[in-house]
Amino acid sequence: MANYQDLIEEIKKLDTELHTKDFLLTWEQSTDELKQVLNVAEALRTLRDENISTKVFDSGLGISLFRDNSTRTRFSYASACNMLGLAVQDLDEGKSQIAHGETVRETANMISFCADVIGIRDDMYLGYGNQYMREVGEALDFGKEEQVLAQRPGVVNLQCDIDHPTQSMADLAWLKEHFGSLENLKGKKIAMTWAYSPSYGKPLSVPQGIIGLMTRFGMDVTLAHPEGYELIPEVVETAAKQAEESGGSFKQVATMEEAFEGADIVYPKSWAPYHVMGKRTELLKANDHEGLKALEKECLEQNAKHKDWHCTEDMMKRTQDGEALYMHCLPADITGVSCEEGEVTEGVFNKYLVDTYKEAGWKPFIIASMILNRKFGNPEDILERLMEKGKRRVDG
Amino acid sequence: MANYQDLIEEIKKLDTELHTKDFLLTWEQSTDELKQVLNVAEALRTLRDENISTKVFDSGLGISLFRDNSTRTRFSYASACNMLGLAVQDLDEGKSQIAHGETVRETANMISFCADVIGIRDDMYLGYGNQYMREVGEALDFGKEEQVLAQRPGVVNLQCDIDHPTQSMADLAWLKEHFGSLENLKGKKIAMTWAYSPSYGKPLSVPQGIIGLMTRFGMDVTLAHPEGYELIPEVVETAAKQAEESGGSFKQVATMEEAFEGADIVYPKSWAPYHVMGKRTELLKANDHEGLKALEKECLEQNAKHKDWHCTEDMMKRTQDGEALYMHCLPADITGVSCEEGEVTEGVFNKYLVDTYKEAGWKPFIIASMILNRKFGNPEDILERLMEKGKRRVDG
Amino acid sequence: MANYQDLIEEIKKLDTELHTKDFLLTWEQSTDELKQVLNVAEALRTLRDENISTKVFDSGLGISLFRDNSTRTRFSYASACNMLGLAVQDLDEGKSQIAHGETVRETANMISFCADVIGIRDDMYLGYGNQYMREVGEALDFGKEEQVLAQRPGVVNLQCDIDHPTQSMADLAWLKEHFGSLENLKGKKIAMTWAYSPSYGKPLSVPQGIIGLMTRFGMDVTLAHPEGYELIPEVVETAAKQAEESGGSFKQVATMEEAFEGADIVYPKSWAPYHVMGKRTELLKANDHEGLKALEKECLEQNAKHKDWHCTEDMMKRTQDGEALYMHCLPADITGVSCEEGEVTEGVFNKYLVDTYKEAGWKPFIIASMILNRKFGNPEDILERLMEKGKRRVDG
Repeated sequence: MANYQDLIEEIKKLDTELHTKDFLLTWEQSTDELKQVLNVAEALRTLRDENISTKVFDSGLGISLFRDNSTRTRFSYASACNMLGLAVQDLDEGKSQIAHGETVRETANMISFCADVIGIRDDMYLGYGNQYMREVGEALDFGKEEQVLAQRPGVVNLQCDIDHPTQSMADLAWLKEHFGSLENLKGKKIAMTWAYSPSYGKPLSVPQGIIGLMTRFGMDVTLAHPEGYELIPEVVETAAKQAEESGGSFKQVATMEEAFEGADIVYPKSWAPYHVMGKRTELLKANDHEGLKALEKECLEQNAKHKDWHCTEDMMKRTQDGEALYMHCLPADITGVSCEEGEVTEGVFNKYLVDTYKEAGWKPFIIASMILNRKFGNPEDILERLMEKGKRRVDG
Repeated sequence: MANYQDLIEEIKKLDTELHTKDFLLTWEQSTDELKQVLNVAEALRTLRDENISTKVFDSGLGISLFRDNSTRTRFSYASACNMLGLAVQDLDEGKSQIAHGETVRETANMISFCADVIGIRDDMYLGYGNQYMREVGEALDFGKEEQVLAQRPGVVNLQCDIDHPTQSMADLAWLKEHFGSLENLKGKKIAMTWAYSPSYGKPLSVPQGIIGLMTRFGMDVTLAHPEGYELIPEVVETAAKQAEESGGSFKQVATMEEAFEGADIVYPKSWAPYHVMGKRTELLKANDHEGLKALEKECLEQNAKHKDWHCTEDMMKRTQDGEALYMHCLPADITGVSCEEGEVTEGVFNKYLVDTYKEAGWKPFIIASMILNRKFGNPEDILERLMEKGKRRVDG
Repeated sequence: MANYQDLIEEIKKLDTELHTKDFLLTWEQSTDELKQVLNVAEALRTLRDENISTKVFDSGLGISLFRDNSTRTRFSYASACNMLGLAVQDLDEGKSQIAHGETVRETANMISFCADVIGIRDDMYLGYGNQYMREVGEALDFGKEEQVLAQRPGVVNLQCDIDHPTQSMADLAWLKEHFGSLENLKGKKIAMTWAYSPSYGKPLSVPQGIIGLMTRFGMDVTLAHPEGYELIPEVVETAAKQAEESGGSFKQVATMEEAFEGADIVYPKSWAPYHVMGKRTELLKANDHEGLKALEKECLEQNAKHKDWHCTEDMMKRTQDGEALYMHCLPADITGVSCEEGEVTEGVFNKYLVDTYKEAGWKPFIIASMILNRKFGNPEDILERLMEKGKRRVDG
């Protein structure tokens, strides 16, 4: 981990507008902005490791809205809010009056009178999740403008239909830690590949998030999946364009084998095909249980044709010195552990288990950084002051 | 918003016993006490707007018990506890052992060893909700007396079968803000009227709360509803008596048109008839699903005869200069938005949308004020000290 | 309550290793360690009673995982975390992705990046609950060792299949308060007896916890239950061995009458037979609803043969001067109140109601003490500093 003062000096040099906009897609942020999120995350982690309080809020609410299950992200968000001094208040739509048919504008304002951030997971409905976050953001802008709200809470994307920025940024922080610097990532080959899993309906946001972010830093990004498992075309185009701009490369190949060839990093993970997610969205909206069952059956049969997309010891041998770094957002579908046949063998997974845990360990700090950067235009001052004060987190 | 020091001076002049009793019905409080709740709420809001910490608790729990769905009040309560320094702990009766048949006395004490306030919503059972809050209060008195509890948590009524004091007090705070002072409310005509909604079973507590509170301040209060939609007779009597005492007036009329005539403020809102709520309570207690379905059907048919109780542009023209202030506790049933035919047209609602949001925005501060006033006999000292200390809420 | 400085002096003399291990079974702790938990709990309670802040954490999470319903323990845990400065984050397995089949190791690490304690209730599955807590502990050791976790959260047993240490330690704190000192408990006769209840499936952890703890302090412990309601044999053996070592005694008798004879303390409480709990565990794991129903029926019929195991006024007359202290972990099955025929008559229960409430009131402080002792090797220093600082909890 870099020296604390160096991190602050680096932040001072960056030209960013993070405090003026919500962090909804990594490709809407400048490279400086992405670097700032990483640096502030590292600084917060350093403070915490040195038992120094990172509280910048005396009070205030961090609201969470999970429209899909979550363990990792839920706890990361809770950790992030807590380390900054915010209390988490969950909006459980089942226990609210939202079914009454109230508007997004109304709900967004009603929960925000004393809120400093709203974290949202909405990844089930293709074409709707990210859009919903933007509607919430606009509603909050409206509320602030009209003096309904004394402060405008930031919105953090805790996974949508398009991107999973807290995941991909945590992944990037981990790669920076593992390889020593962002500079060192240049020319590294990362293989984002589909992998078989006996489940269906997994969001596209992780693979999209990875190709949409790693192409920013001069990496050679390879995407691979069976035919029919395409990602959202616009995101793939964005990735290609970014690779060119950053001096890296982006290509698509048709097999896991090819993708793994000479890779420095592999990220084998299951996802549902774009068109299936679209169909599923319509069925979910129509509450068509029969249709969903039929789609699941069809999809699982389709999946089952691709069981050879399996991250095995043999597959890993194809990578750089047979020692590529294995990554996963977790939980992985581990063959013989969490399912009969899955994304990865137990042997490969266990070899990299600690790595994947460390990868996950960045998420609380990435989210805290996003909140802090959204709230304050001068994170460097805040970080300096926290270190100076040196208030102990645990007073033992 | 009034000057902070003025607010404190005003509080000093008031003669109140708020710290000796739970705030369960507004008509059990003296006028001075109601004013104090408003003033402390304004002072807390001023502090927060000036980024000054309002924490008076270093630690402690604020317990919530919601026996009905809630978004606004839930978040307002969470905000109130948080701004004072309390952590919210929800009592989810579904996840507790309360079904075992334990007594109110036991539950109330078991959750209160480290609690400073208990907020309760219990509005479904006519004749029971407010009574339950009193039983909790008595149980806490017993616990304190018997040295089971080191402190006696206050009880805050977050809506019962009779009153919705955090709503009506927030409404009053909004009227005070809107019209400039409580003094200015004298002689203003407010129309609390029933309105059509395609739902049933809505509590009586809002209309009762409004006529029970606004008659305290010299307003001309008009209540209107179709035949069969009577409120609890005792509350109506109380309203009439209070109007007389305060130099205002109270009358009932038979149509929305008549009620709106010349009104300065209109509050059109659906509710279920008293006798239906009574019948529903019996059916709910008997777990009689068939009976409840039949009642719902009957009630919706009954409602449908009164679709002309609709707050339209034309209806608004009857009010003072056609520009009465529209109020609602939200969410409103908006025609063409949240339902096909509802309480209010989209045009009228949207014209006053920001107003209704600002109305709602007072609730966190009203609740915080109730908690603070219940805990401390000297809020003026506390408010002075908070301003003096001037600890920043957000340390940016 | 003992003098604060005396408590600290006593703590200084104790030889303990509480900060190196999780508190999972009382009989794994030395007598000094048990005394230290009591003393620190008393000291925390004294601070709170004197309105002095007990916060030792500036921020940090206290995680809870309840695999069974809970009111008392849930609120006690929340209170304990709050008084020390931790925010509670509940792991709701229903809202998580845990069903995906992830390992205990993974879940334990994923939730712990910013956690200082994890409290677990897992009492439904005989042979699994305590084991699960140990697996979580080992996973956390692994995470700390591998630098996945910056700190190793403690694990607190909030009731397992074997012991209920936060309950039994709170019971012991209450006995110490009631009789004046641990010394005074020597030679006191306590009767831990089964009692009839029209329910089934109640864990064995309370009676096991009581005989496993009270035999440490020279008490004369009598266990009584109908044939077929045996406890886990190893725990009974442990109790017998401990009684011998502590200069007390342990015996089993066949009737409540015999157990109550001359008792100073009685603890009549229902539980399910060991073999039934084993059978139930298998049925629960197999998701065998029919089997569970049949078992419940059989078990309730079996219970009904022993309705004479009833703590009545007449039964109480057999105790020391007819005035034994009645204890219960609550909620009790009170005849004519929470059930037709139960563990205890209303008369007996009400006579001791305040006592049982005070008994329960120790739990928040016992849990806080366990957390504090697990985190810090020098609680005496921390307690001294808290008193010196004298920061007011409620700043009125």
